[in-house]
Amino acid sequence: MLQGRRTWMFDKPPVIVGTGTVVGPDEGEGPLGGDFDLVHPDMTIQQPSWEKAERLMLEQASDIALSKAALSKDKINFYVGGDLINQIISSTFAARTLGAPYLGVFGACSTSMESLALAALLVSTGAARYAMAGTSSHNCTAEKQFRYPTEYGSQKPPTAQYTVTGAGAAVVAAEGDGPRITSATVGRIMDLGLKDPFDMGSAMAPAAVDTIQAHLQETGRDPGYYDMIVTGDLASVGHPIAADLLKRHGVPIAETQFNDCGLLVYDIARQTVQAGGSGCACSATVAYGHLLKRLASGQLNRLLVVATGALLSPLSFQQGESIPCIAHAVSIER
Amino acid sequence: MLQGRRTWMFDKPPVIVGTGTVVGPDEGEGPLGGDFDLVHPDMTIQQPSWEKAERLMLEQASDIALSKAALSKDKINFYVGGDLINQIISSTFAARTLGAPYLGVFGACSTSMESLALAALLVSTGAARYAMAGTSSHNCTAEKQFRYPTEYGSQKPPTAQYTVTGAGAAVVAAEGDGPRITSATVGRIMDLGLKDPFDMGSAMAPAAVDTIQAHLQETGRDPGYYDMIVTGDLASVGHPIAADLLKRHGVPIAETQFNDCGLLVYDIARQTVQAGGSGCACSATVAYGHLLKRLASGQLNRLLVVATGALLSPLSFQQGESIPCIAHAVSIER
Repeated sequence: MLQGRRTWMFDKPPVIVGTGTVVGPDEGEGPLGGDFDLVHPDMTIQQPSWEKAERLMLEQASDIALSKAALSKDKINFYVGGDLINQIISSTFAARTLGAPYLGVFGACSTSMESLALAALLVSTGAARYAMAGTSSHNCTAEKQFRYPTEYGSQKPPTAQYTVTGAGAAVVAAEGDGPRITSATVGRIMDLGLKDPFDMGSAMAPAAVDTIQAHLQETGRDPGYYDMIVTGDLASVGHPIAADLLKRHGVPIAETQFNDCGLLVYDIARQTVQAGGSGCACSATVAYGHLLKRLASGQLNRLLVVATGALLSPLSFQQGESIPCIAHAVSIER
Repeated sequence: MLQGRRTWMFDKPPVIVGTGTVVGPDEGEGPLGGDFDLVHPDMTIQQPSWEKAERLMLEQASDIALSKAALSKDKINFYVGGDLINQIISSTFAARTLGAPYLGVFGACSTSMESLALAALLVSTGAARYAMAGTSSHNCTAEKQFRYPTEYGSQKPPTAQYTVTGAGAAVVAAEGDGPRITSATVGRIMDLGLKDPFDMGSAMAPAAVDTIQAHLQETGRDPGYYDMIVTGDLASVGHPIAADLLKRHGVPIAETQFNDCGLLVYDIARQTVQAGGSGCACSATVAYGHLLKRLASGQLNRLLVVATGALLSPLSFQQGESIPCIAHAVSIER
């Protein structure tokens, strides 16, 4: 099971038997719009607050995942979830609705793969028959909490990123039809002293590189083992930095093979999203919606999703701290 | 491994090979003061902010736990940690200092046993050789974030609780000398519609009862199997409610056998702590400091720690939501 310091190789690779992806209008109008299960035409989703809208999306994603897995709620042994809102209330309220035993997790935008890695571990070791991983983010809840309320109309530098409005959930089972989770590598904190919350891609790039290198080394795999290695939300500033660092470290990843969910989810030239997408839902919706469809159709056979997270808080920033970052990687194979 | 819906019975019960507990002055002056590894005489710990003081305590607790386990930092495969501060920054910065691969978790005050249960699972299944569970809370960081800055001098009703200033960490290993973790039961959200953040004991009591009943049912154990069943932080209002609910549900737990970390940590008659202690560090320091000492000395043989958590946020309260609660139970045996 454990290889190296921090990689799990699943002897019995668990199966993703159902996923659900729900997004807002900007993601629906993006290049992957057709790959999501549910696209909401406006960001309020007829809810009285942004937070209630985010929670509803996560509940919907969970419902869709269960429905595709043809399972009732009471079959889920553990719901592993988290999100960006203080005290991860979206996930907690979604867990209340689901009624499943609940393991709350937090890895900022890396929560998508942290939760999937843990769900896979639970199933693979027999600690669960069925586990669900879920996460969400909402542009307006994130702006309000981490930056300024949207209504202030504050300007952003081009290095800033645009939080994806959406939710993704995946049901993991010991057996069934679907892609298999073959391994996972847990990230460690990488903090190179960067402090600019409007440039989180640069801060997170070294964490992605560290996890990719650890994953390849501990699994004994070449980068060529994967048809695609996709980072979570490094976007147009951070992703080239990660590519450059990998090159400098002698890790041969072809340009066509290395992508980023924050670059895939929007048409950056056309949509006003600065450097690209971010948020827990960025890697969750792109992986569970778009990339697993490409796996199912045979366009991809082996995928490594490296979800990145900037673990700062407004308070840690105000107290002059740098931005600690992390990346968790999960390999999904056909 | 999995019994019932949500209990793990560890076939190879992992061992707690080292713990570290650090507290502030109020806890040091309480009845358990002599059981903690490090008592700070003031709450600032010579740090420029309460948050930095909290983080330092968690770093110290981790160091002490490592030292008692006679392990260097690089032996720890995974640090499983979380705390009450937004985006769990205490744990993240402590993980940065530790340098270990990091799984951030959040279960409010139940984080203590959520992290210990996961650390035990990792080790028991061979997913880790060594895992560390850690958590912290600080009275002033919690007051500032969840209620009012202490300097406002706001009054509190007697049902309110006093957040423990402290940190606890435990190193879990496959083999070694120390108490063994034999099982864990993961909580589900219980929300009976209570909305008063100054009476979280009442809100959390049903979650403790639900988890205790699930644990006993799924393990097939009688309450008498345990020398002590101890809840996390129900304190003087919530704990009698839990006792009463158990009685009504026909679960025979003797009064002498059922206790609460929030009642143990302070002398409620003498110290100004309203209903008693709360916070992630309440159950962590009492379990790792006091109760494991009683296990080691043979005063206790079998212990069930049921850490309770109120998963509200100031925002969810302001938006009129009730308080979702959870409790995670871990059994520790000599």
